[in-house]
Amino acid sequence: MTYCVAIKVNDGLVFAGDTRTSAGVDDVRTYNKLHVFENPSDRLFILLSAGNLATTHSILNSIRRDWDDQSGTLTSLRTVRHMFDAADYVGQLSVKAQKDSAAIAQQSSADFRTTLILGGQIMGEDPALYLIYPEGNCISSSPETPYLQIGELKYGKPILDRVIRPEVSLEDAARCALVSMDSTMKSNISVGPPIDVAIVARNMLRVTQKLRLDSDTPYFADLRRAWGHRLVEAFSTLPRFEWELEPQPQPNQFAPQQQQQ
Amino acid sequence: MTYCVAIKVNDGLVFAGDTRTSAGVDDVRTYNKLHVFENPSDRLFILLSAGNLATTHSILNSIRRDWDDQSGTLTSLRTVRHMFDAADYVGQLSVKAQKDSAAIAQQSSADFRTTLILGGQIMGEDPALYLIYPEGNCISSSPETPYLQIGELKYGKPILDRVIRPEVSLEDAARCALVSMDSTMKSNISVGPPIDVAIVARNMLRVTQKLRLDSDTPYFADLRRAWGHRLVEAFSTLPRFEWELEPQPQPNQFAPQQQQQ
Repeated sequence: MTYCVAIKVNDGLVFAGDTRTSAGVDDVRTYNKLHVFENPSDRLFILLSAGNLATTHSILNSIRRDWDDQSGTLTSLRTVRHMFDAADYVGQLSVKAQKDSAAIAQQSSADFRTTLILGGQIMGEDPALYLIYPEGNCISSSPETPYLQIGELKYGKPILDRVIRPEVSLEDAARCALVSMDSTMKSNISVGPPIDVAIVARNMLRVTQKLRLDSDTPYFADLRRAWGHRLVEAFSTLPRFEWELEPQPQPNQFAPQQQQQ
Repeated sequence: MTYCVAIKVNDGLVFAGDTRTSAGVDDVRTYNKLHVFENPSDRLFILLSAGNLATTHSILNSIRRDWDDQSGTLTSLRTVRHMFDAADYVGQLSVKAQKDSAAIAQQSSADFRTTLILGGQIMGEDPALYLIYPEGNCISSSPETPYLQIGELKYGKPILDRVIRPEVSLEDAARCALVSMDSTMKSNISVGPPIDVAIVARNMLRVTQKLRLDSDTPYFADLRRAWGHRLVEAFSTLPRFEWELEPQPQPNQFAPQQQQQ
């Protein structure tokens, strides 16, 4: 399993992904799941992946091969006109990679599917986020649904729903992605550190900030500790039940006092 | 789907369950999923259910039939010696109900499984919680795992992990169950109000507080609103990224001032 989230706010895009891969609990490895394709003169793409690792690697190899093609005639992330063309292109590569694996594997019951998030900006267009299904089709983020998740998405969703709005700053969006990641890591051991974060400011066409945060990276450790404390503090101020508010019996201050000698 | 949670703390037990049942999004109904069996002289049980509603109703009918048996020779919640005997007994009823349905249904692909939580106290024993699998076997809560969940458990788990400890008060445990329920309802429409809550203080052998909270019940509405605000407040105090702390360029206060006339 994996957990990746991408957020679109007015100021740009935020991407976060864990790095744990596993083929069972006895075969756990660390792989980057956040891939950057950057041509600062006119375009930037970031790809997040969840699912079959070999399929993802095959897609990445195809993207890189096409990206490096000098002929200029090939469809590639370097030549597509629009962000949705980019998502279509990656979707087609994904379907092909899955089909190729299935054809070789014959009777295998292995699951070759991969789900992807492709985000970025092409000069002259708005930044955009797409979730690409294993079937190759895709949906984009929207003002009502400003974030997309892949992999183990449930544990970390409530905080995104509370915080993420289009007007949130890039830094707050990134912090929220980290809190969401922290909640997920606490409950699903197949999601694990280090965490990769990329922040892309609108119209910059390059990664503005890129962080790799491990459990002992001071900022991430501070953030996790602070969130744990703040959450418990917030909880402690919640309204009491009716019966908790009933006055406790007090000693009667007007009762005659005993004479002391 | 359903969401139910039961919590064991030093002071007793807390149970919470939603009431939404569905056979597809076009067939949604409201059913109680929190069932009380009380004999205040020596025992109290509460059953929470998630899964096939007919199986649950069949189990409940069997429990009630056996409970009302006057012979005193039948195994029932009224006659079992220990809490784990009670869990075993309910597990057997569950397996039988599922088998009976499957036998009648023949080739149907319907899913007859039900997962249950049975909690309570028998005089002379500690309060106890059991999660009863569809296979009829069960696990109990423990000091390290003081809560059990059934149904749609992921969205509401992070807050339980942060707050629930054996030393937490019954009221805080109930509040936490409600926050956990709120987070779940926000993300899964198959979990819905009203919410049933039962609080059972240790050694009382009866339900101390029983609440049915709908979306517009003032306490529940206040709690949900307060939690939304507090969470966003807590989030806003999280540590800043390094680059956010860099001083912004200030106008030079030592620059010679323009003469004014």
